[in-house]
This record gives sequence, C-alpha cells and structure tokens, in this order.
Amino acid sequence: MSAAILCIGTELTRGELVNTNAAWLADALTTLGFEVTAVDCTDDDRSRIQEGLRRLGERHDVLVCTGGLGPTTDDLTTECVATLLGVSLERDLASLEKIRERMERFGRTLSASNAKQADLPRGARVLPNPRGTAPGFAVKLQRAHAFFLPGVPHEMEAMFDNHVAPSIQPLVSDHVRQIVLKTFGMTESAVNDGLAGLEAEHGVLLGYRARFPEIEVKVLARNRSARAAEAQARAAADSARARLGPDVVYGEGSVGFPESVGRLLVERRWTLGVAESCTGGLVSELLTERSGASEFFAGAVVSYSNEVKERVLGVPAAVLADHGSVSAQTARAMAEGARRVLAASVALSITGVAGPTGGTLEKPVGLVHFAVATGNGTSARQLSYPGSRQQIQRLSAFAGLALLRKVIQEGHNEQGS
Amino acid sequence: MSAAILCIGTELTRGELVNTNAAWLADALTTLGFEVTAVDCTDDDRSRIQEGLRRLGERHDVLVCTGGLGPTTDDLTTECVATLLGVSLERDLASLEKIRERMERFGRTLSASNAKQADLPRGARVLPNPRGTAPGFAVKLQRAHAFFLPGVPHEMEAMFDNHVAPSIQPLVSDHVRQIVLKTFGMTESAVNDGLAGLEAEHGVLLGYRARFPEIEVKVLARNRSARAAEAQARAAADSARARLGPDVVYGEGSVGFPESVGRLLVERRWTLGVAESCTGGLVSELLTERSGASEFFAGAVVSYSNEVKERVLGVPAAVLADHGSVSAQTARAMAEGARRVLAASVALSITGVAGPTGGTLEKPVGLVHFAVATGNGTSARQLSYPGSRQQIQRLSAFAGLALLRKVIQEGHNEQGS
Repeated sequence: MSAAILCIGTELTRGELVNTNAAWLADALTTLGFEVTAVDCTDDDRSRIQEGLRRLGERHDVLVCTGGLGPTTDDLTTECVATLLGVSLERDLASLEKIRERMERFGRTLSASNAKQADLPRGARVLPNPRGTAPGFAVKLQRAHAFFLPGVPHEMEAMFDNHVAPSIQPLVSDHVRQIVLKTFGMTESAVNDGLAGLEAEHGVLLGYRARFPEIEVKVLARNRSARAAEAQARAAADSARARLGPDVVYGEGSVGFPESVGRLLVERRWTLGVAESCTGGLVSELLTERSGASEFFAGAVVSYSNEVKERVLGVPAAVLADHGSVSAQTARAMAEGARRVLAASVALSITGVAGPTGGTLEKPVGLVHFAVATGNGTSARQLSYPGSRQQIQRLSAFAGLALLRKVIQEGHNEQGS
Repeated sequence: MSAAILCIGTELTRGELVNTNAAWLADALTTLGFEVTAVDCTDDDRSRIQEGLRRLGERHDVLVCTGGLGPTTDDLTTECVATLLGVSLERDLASLEKIRERMERFGRTLSASNAKQADLPRGARVLPNPRGTAPGFAVKLQRAHAFFLPGVPHEMEAMFDNHVAPSIQPLVSDHVRQIVLKTFGMTESAVNDGLAGLEAEHGVLLGYRARFPEIEVKVLARNRSARAAEAQARAAADSARARLGPDVVYGEGSVGFPESVGRLLVERRWTLGVAESCTGGLVSELLTERSGASEFFAGAVVSYSNEVKERVLGVPAAVLADHGSVSAQTARAMAEGARRVLAASVALSITGVAGPTGGTLEKPVGLVHFAVATGNGTSARQLSYPGSRQQIQRLSAFAGLALLRKVIQEGHNEQGS
C-alpha cells in the first residue's frame, strides 16, 4: 500500500518554517504499514495545488494533505479539491455551528471568512477538529483515499489519530508491531553497523532517528498474524539489545535519557544535586523538562565563575589555583560541595571547555571532567569531544548523566546518605 | 525566476528525520530573489527520482537537490542524473584524490564504495565539498540550472553558499536587500496584524519565522538599483520598528534575545546572578549557549526544592510558610539572595507553576513570579501563561530576561553595586 503527503503553504516553500508535519505524518503512515514514497510541498497557487493533488492521487492508495483550510484568501485547498472532483462547495451546518460556538467562547462573532471554513466539497466526509476551528474532510481522489487536515500541528495530529488512522488501517492487511529502542553512547553509523544483518535475520524493518545525542532504533514487524508480528518484533528487539549492550540501550518507548535517569533516582529514593560549569544549566534543564522532577531533583548550582565555585560550592581556592577549573580535582570538589550544599543523596558535577574559545594545548576545547559524589565516595572521569559548542554542551550533559546512571546501578551508595 | 527543491532519501519519506535542509534552502533561495514553488521529497527509488528530476527540471529555472550522493547502494542520485542526460559516469580524478586524502587523514584506506563518490555525469561541473567526502555537481537539466548537494546539513550549506549562490545570483536581475527584525513579546498573529499594509506601503515582502517564543520578521526589498533596494528595506524596517515599538523589536540580524540581554550587561559592565525554580536551569542554559557568557554571567542557583531556597539563597522560612514558594515575596527574596550569594551586580529570579500538575485555584498552572534585584532595590512582576509545560518554561525564561532588560535600560542601578 503506497502513501503520499502533500503540504500546502507558501510559508513552507519560502522556508519560513521547518515542515515538522511532514516528518510526523511520514512516520505515522510508515508505522501503520504504508510505503510513503512522496512528501511534497507546494505554495498557495491554484494550478500547482491541483497539479500536485492530481499527480499524487493517481499514483497512491492514500494521500494525506495539510494546510490551506484556514479562513484567509490564501487558503485554497478546499476549492481546488472541489474543482478537481467537479463538484460544488456545500456549507456543512454542523461544522458551522461548531465554529460559531468556538468563536463565541473566545468572545468573538462569526465572520464571513470564518464561515467559509465550513464549506466543503459536496459528498465529502467531514473530519471534526477537536482542537481548532477548521474541520478536515475526506474524499476519493482518483486511486487515493485522500484526507485534508489543517496545518496546525496539534490539530493535525489529533485528527490523524482520531479519523485518518482508523479509516486506513484496514487497507493494510498485515498487523504491524513496533518497538522503539532508546540508545545513548554510540554514533548513528556505529549503531547501524552494530545491527547489520538484523533485518534479514528477523524479517523486520529497522528505522533510525537521531535526536542528538540520542539515537532511536525503531523495530517494525509486519505479519498476517498479530501474535507473530509481536513475537518477531520482540525477538528482533531483544537481539538488537544484546548486540548493542545494556550501557547503550537504556530503555524502550518514548522516555528520554534524562527522564530515565530521573526514574532510577526515584526508584532508589535518592535526591540529586548538580554542579555545572560548561553545560551552563543544561543538565538541570533536561532533568526538569518533564513534570515530576521534584520527586528527585533538589537543585543545582551553575558555577560559571571561579568565585561561585569557591563561595557557593566550597571548592578550595588552592585546588583551583593548582589544578585549574577544568580538572578532576575541581570536578570532585564541585560534586562533593554540591552534595553538601544542596543536601542531596548524590551529586553530579561537570566542568570543561565548551569553546569555541578558551582552549589551550593542555586543556583543548572539548575536554570535560565529570564527578559523581555519594555517601560512599566520589567517582570521576574525563572525556574529550569534537564538535560545536552546542554539541559539546549537549554531549557533556548526557555523558554526565550516563556516569550518574552507572553509579546508581552499581549501587555505590547502598547505605544512602 | 522560479526555483524548486528535491530532497532524496527514504529516511525523509519514512519520517526518520525532520527535513531542515528543505527550509534552509527555501529560505536561502527566497532571499536571493527566487520564487520557490515546489519542495519535494522522494524515496531512494530510481524511477521516482528520475520522474521528480524530469518534472521539476522542466518547470523551473533553478533546481537544487540534496541527498543520495553517499557511498552506499541506496545512493542513486548521480546515476539517475546520468541516465536522464543520456551520458556515462566518469571518475573525477581531482575529487578522487581529495576523498583519498580525507580517508587517510582519518586513518582509513579508500574503498571501492568511497571511490564511487568521485563518479560524476560526464560534462558535469564539480562542486567541491570542503566539509565532507562526497563532492557535488551542477548540470543543465532541461530548463533548469540543476545543483546536486549532499544531504548532511553543514556540508550542504557551505556548498550552497560557496558554489550555488554565486552561480545563480546573476539570474535574478534585481538587487535584493534583506533586514531581519528580532521580536519578543507579541504572538505571530499580533505581529502580523501590527504590520498590515506595510508590504504595499513600502513595496517590500514580509516573511515571518517563529522560533518560539521569538518571532523574526524578514523585510525583503528588490530593486534594479542596489541603493534603492537598500533604502526601501531600511524605510520599511524602520516603519515596522515604529509600529511594533522598542519593547518588542529588540534587535536586527541574527542575535537571539538572551544574547542581546547579555550584550547589554557587558556594555554596562554588570555581572548577573540567576535564581530559578520552575524554569529549572533554562535561563542559565539560554545565556550560556553562546560563547562569551563568562564576561557577564556569574552563575545560577536552580532552587527546585524549598530547602535549597532557604539553605542556599537564604529565603526566610517564614516567607515560604506565609506566602508559599510561588509568590512575589519569595521571588524578591530569591533575587536578593542570588545577588548576595553569587556576588553579582544584578540578579534575576523566577518561581512559578510550570505544570501540568501542581496548580491550585489560587495558584493555577502558568502563574509565574519574577524579580530583579540591583543595588538600588528590587522590581517584581507576575504573569500568567497558557500552554504546555515546555511552553510555560520557555515563555517564563524569556519574560524574566525581558524584565531584566527593562531594569537595565531604565538604569535602576546607575550607582552599581
């Protein structure tokens, strides 16, 4: 079963925004078992929209279009579909009522341009929009089951999940089972090499998605039998886990690496303090992105200046003078100071040269020292990274969390603090 | 002059990565004065690649393609171009030598699949790749000047700037002048409404790019005379600045809002300390993303728990007990404590309910208190935001920096600290 995506809007062809809808839809359709072979964008131009719809409708079983359903004169999608089908536009009264209600809830009255959003090609199936004004619709366009959704991502996603996926799922006779492995610590090409031959061995499809510095591996199995698809995906995922190792594959599903480390802390009932220099607050930010951080996260000291390292974290002036701020000794003193000052069971410290300036022969850009202090002692390590400032900061934050994970798992602190 | 973009790769049609190249190229071509009307992706399939090249080559003056130039068997672009042109592939010896040198520098020997990257359609112009292995090339494909670049963003971008832009610039007879206004504090639709009619009034094109919560406004003028284009763009930009106001338009060019506040601090020779709760380190992270933060940034205390607010920042237990951690009183005490503890000239504090849990009737999700402490006193404000946890955190971080900017500009601290 083949599928295509057409995204309509001059904001896309002018590069005013990155087309995240396209990737989201391509992933969703692939996961449902479709082969997506075209992901096109066109500007708000009648003849080019019609040409795109005609071309993609002829060649694919499913066509999903986004954009051009709004109230302005640039929004031409509905009109173009009606022209192609040779039908008139018809006002959908139920949709009109919903638009009116929504406008009233926000203290506005229905304008002619808003009412236009309830005009749909005669015979189209209405797809309600629970999160916005413009409804979507579905029609048969030549070979394709064609779906028209708004361009606003959270509206589009809800409508795809609620209406499009249930409609097209039966077209794929196979059952599809997907397992997502979350990895950190290897490059994409190393993960790729490590899993060479796995697709053929288990009859699955592997997909990779880099969310720097994490790599997600998607294991997709298709089978006439749901149970067989499940077993195939499970066997392939287990084999991938064994090949890459437990230090690299830290979990399955949608949990990110910082969150997974947070969960380990909650399980152990440990609280965490952080002292960060070159990462400038990034570790704390990553740990508090998701709700629930207060269960384990006491706080952090971003000790960008040496004065703060001394005054707040209590790093001895002699350590800074003798070894410098980027050193194993300073990292240890920072972690121990953070554990004490923040009254946490465990503390992580990071100090390094993020660059692009500030490097020396002895301490080049990319050199980073880490330490983790527990009630049973302090572990330290150093690493060197290539890359831009942002890459070095992100890699350092993740590597610091990886050291923390190791210390937690090795139970260094079994007696607690 | 019309232009099209074709991105080749199954990783795009499967949604394994978001196509940032497409937006980058569309923006670059628009800025050069081209009208981009198609931005298409196809999977690694010979017949579909050829169909896309033929269709887009027929209809556009310029065609830029990315991807499919690598060493693997999936990389089919070069072969497809040769087939379409009816020419053979020819090994480019200069490119081969560069690939060999590069491999040797990384301690590897040249393989047959690497050597394949030096095979180009006979008669093609070679586009050297200063940042990677695969060279690009240029050919005439029907109507289009067609350019083939690798899919790796930083390689592609350098090659576009070095080779493609200089080649195609002369095709556009107009001179193009662009001014980018950076704004924070209004929604995209409010900015849009505020600038209604400006395009017609000044004969310019306006483009918007949202980098949440900032909105960039791109003012683009085209004219036969370079001086007239410059004057047109300047007049339109000044008019836009006047309409939106100096609190909203904080700068021009590529500087982000956090960086612009950092620069103000450096100008005043003030050092900054930060105390953050609900933003969890994000303010510090934003300030240290760019190099040079050590000129003004002393450090931060991420006081996620009340214990850290008391112990490290010295917020009185009575203030926390009487007013709660999300209150103007706590925000003031946090800012004053951070200024003292971090020994900074000025300190910013943020405490709020980022959600999605933890809200109450009295203190709902989205309520955030801010304070800025200087040697001359402390300013506080409170705001309420809608949105997800991530949106509330990001908006709060930016709003805190906006309050800081206001205090700096009003010179509250003229006597310093």
